[in-house]
Amino acid sequence: MPAERPETLRVFSLNCWGIRFFSQLCTQRYEMIGELLGREQHDIALLQEVWSEKDFLFLKRKLSSSHPYTHYFKSGVFGSGLAVFSKHRIQDALLYKYSLNGYPYMLHAEYSRAQDEYLPHRMVQSWELLQFVRHTSCGADLVVLGGDLNMHPQDLGNRLLRSHTGLRDCYTETDTFDGCEDGHTLIAANHFSKKQDLIPFEKGIRIDYILMKGSQKVSMKCESLSTTKGPVADKPYPYSDHEALTAELALLHSEDSRQHGSSNALAVSEQMDVVAEARAVVKEGLCQTEALRDKATYLMFSGLLLLLLPLAMAFLPCFCSFSTLGLLGAVCMSLLLSGAMLYLLFTTHIKVLKETDDQMMLTSNDLQTKLTGCRLSGSPSSDGSPELQPLSPFKREE
Amino acid sequence: MPAERPETLRVFSLNCWGIRFFSQLCTQRYEMIGELLGREQHDIALLQEVWSEKDFLFLKRKLSSSHPYTHYFKSGVFGSGLAVFSKHRIQDALLYKYSLNGYPYMLHAEYSRAQDEYLPHRMVQSWELLQFVRHTSCGADLVVLGGDLNMHPQDLGNRLLRSHTGLRDCYTETDTFDGCEDGHTLIAANHFSKKQDLIPFEKGIRIDYILMKGSQKVSMKCESLSTTKGPVADKPYPYSDHEALTAELALLHSEDSRQHGSSNALAVSEQMDVVAEARAVVKEGLCQTEALRDKATYLMFSGLLLLLLPLAMAFLPCFCSFSTLGLLGAVCMSLLLSGAMLYLLFTTHIKVLKETDDQMMLTSNDLQTKLTGCRLSGSPSSDGSPELQPLSPFKREE
Repeated sequence: MPAERPETLRVFSLNCWGIRFFSQLCTQRYEMIGELLGREQHDIALLQEVWSEKDFLFLKRKLSSSHPYTHYFKSGVFGSGLAVFSKHRIQDALLYKYSLNGYPYMLHAEYSRAQDEYLPHRMVQSWELLQFVRHTSCGADLVVLGGDLNMHPQDLGNRLLRSHTGLRDCYTETDTFDGCEDGHTLIAANHFSKKQDLIPFEKGIRIDYILMKGSQKVSMKCESLSTTKGPVADKPYPYSDHEALTAELALLHSEDSRQHGSSNALAVSEQMDVVAEARAVVKEGLCQTEALRDKATYLMFSGLLLLLLPLAMAFLPCFCSFSTLGLLGAVCMSLLLSGAMLYLLFTTHIKVLKETDDQMMLTSNDLQTKLTGCRLSGSPSSDGSPELQPLSPFKREE
Repeated sequence: MPAERPETLRVFSLNCWGIRFFSQLCTQRYEMIGELLGREQHDIALLQEVWSEKDFLFLKRKLSSSHPYTHYFKSGVFGSGLAVFSKHRIQDALLYKYSLNGYPYMLHAEYSRAQDEYLPHRMVQSWELLQFVRHTSCGADLVVLGGDLNMHPQDLGNRLLRSHTGLRDCYTETDTFDGCEDGHTLIAANHFSKKQDLIPFEKGIRIDYILMKGSQKVSMKCESLSTTKGPVADKPYPYSDHEALTAELALLHSEDSRQHGSSNALAVSEQMDVVAEARAVVKEGLCQTEALRDKATYLMFSGLLLLLLPLAMAFLPCFCSFSTLGLLGAVCMSLLLSGAMLYLLFTTHIKVLKETDDQMMLTSNDLQTKLTGCRLSGSPSSDGSPELQPLSPFKREE
């Protein structure tokens, strides 16, 4: 009897680098991206950094027949930049905002690994992403996660995400691959890529991914993966400063494949190791942030003390002019206010880091229990579904 | 053959009103709350407004033997105020922060229904809460949601939450009830309650809830519900300005009860009605917020134009003094900055309202399809599990 013919799902992902008036040749590149999507007819296209709603609406119009279903995630002052185009009906959408997004006073995405000031923030984001996937994918037939994750393949955050969700990287799993060497998505051959970001990695960097996961009902396999390779044939420039990814995923209905949930002792022990490593980073970040908050406290108090100076001088009217006094007062007030703002900022960050550490601890304890169960019985004690559902821990301000 | 004896789950919920140095008699009340919890030995205690971590740690020490498992949700500058104490191991915790929490310049929780400026915000919160429950409860044996929801029983947000999650209100479902009239949790007989909040509702208000939901594996029933009634015997004052709730829930393992998923045509049509009502509120909120943003724009431009005045005057040095000029300049700058801050604030709110409206639209369309399916076949076309999992729509800033 012939095997059931698998259905396929074609998924596309691109960081569109669409900052109007800043990213080069936006209009022309969106025209090219729209053409590509209309021609290639992927089942789902995941676009990032579509910062302008006008550009989204342009694509929506252009793709109205090939991809009639779409969702543009709105959030924050500048939006989320995320757009999904689909040939299939989108039944629901859910947006989760990361708690930490770097420091507002440092704006550059960091590709250097040596001095990564954002490492604890990335760890919190990875944790939140994996928690989101774990908690929302229980009833799912399959999970596809695609986009610019801003992490190298072997970065801790990436290992954490993969080991705790069971998501598999299409690049390492694919049957056939056609694209840049080592699957790089930031390459020197791309006209737009910032060459200084690539100095420590002359061959390129892989930070864009399509990850996937089946379920008990559906088993999943990556049949082919391809990337763009910088220049585009017959066009004067590439689609973006990132390369685009296209994955062909084969879906096979299965009775009970069990391949998705790898909760044997080895997998559990690997999960424990990686979460321990992540906790160390979060704790280190906590120490750094506490030190920064101390500095903010000093700044505040310096401002406060200095403020006494012009006040005292005001009692010696001939000592200096009114305008000098005013200037001095303004400087002190600025110090005081900056200190206070930074204090609040770091306090918020400390809370988020502590919450992440607490959640990681719960997971560690749970894994420890499972591991003990595994060792005693040769199989896991629990399938990971909580005995009691987490109790809707909603924050509200009154 | 005798029926299987149900297991019971005793759940406690209290808004602790724990703002140090502001809420009255905090220390004494936490002592009382700790005593109550230690004596009553509920399976799970859900506490809200535990604003100080010190108070949480006090309870944690006091309850270390009765409730060895606990989680305190850390978030924002002031924390979330949420604490969970459990007799059973907590395997995982997840925190979701509402996108909208009222306006920072209006700080009072609004109990009046007539002029509820926050109605659209409440609607967004209800929507986010129900989306959280829907998307995280697929694999759950049971769901319990408890706390101060700041909504009356028949408020739109409450109806939206119940109809779209299938959560049932213990107060209306309970076999026996012992507590305040109509289940009120804010009552005039409470020494601490703010009497002016109760003016339009002289009997009291019910805004604290325990909601529950079973699954295909477990059917759930509320056997008894009780509330405190203001004064506490042998104590000079109540536990809080809110009354506490205690529910005894009977859990019965069932083969396939199906009672949890009410997706018949009638339920679907009710869901459609209530989401349509909610969309109208969100759209109204959108209009109001757009009008507010316009005002912020005017403010900004007024500041900018007025700033020209002292600049012009500076060219007429004898016209007025240097300090007058400085003062005028400072006023203009304040106008400009306030306008800009408000503009950013309202822009963010508009994005959140639009995102919520988009998500509600997706749900409406989905319900419409189901309803058509119901009417054609007499049963729903789909069980609500998405064909394609929502595609990890994470916001990141780079």
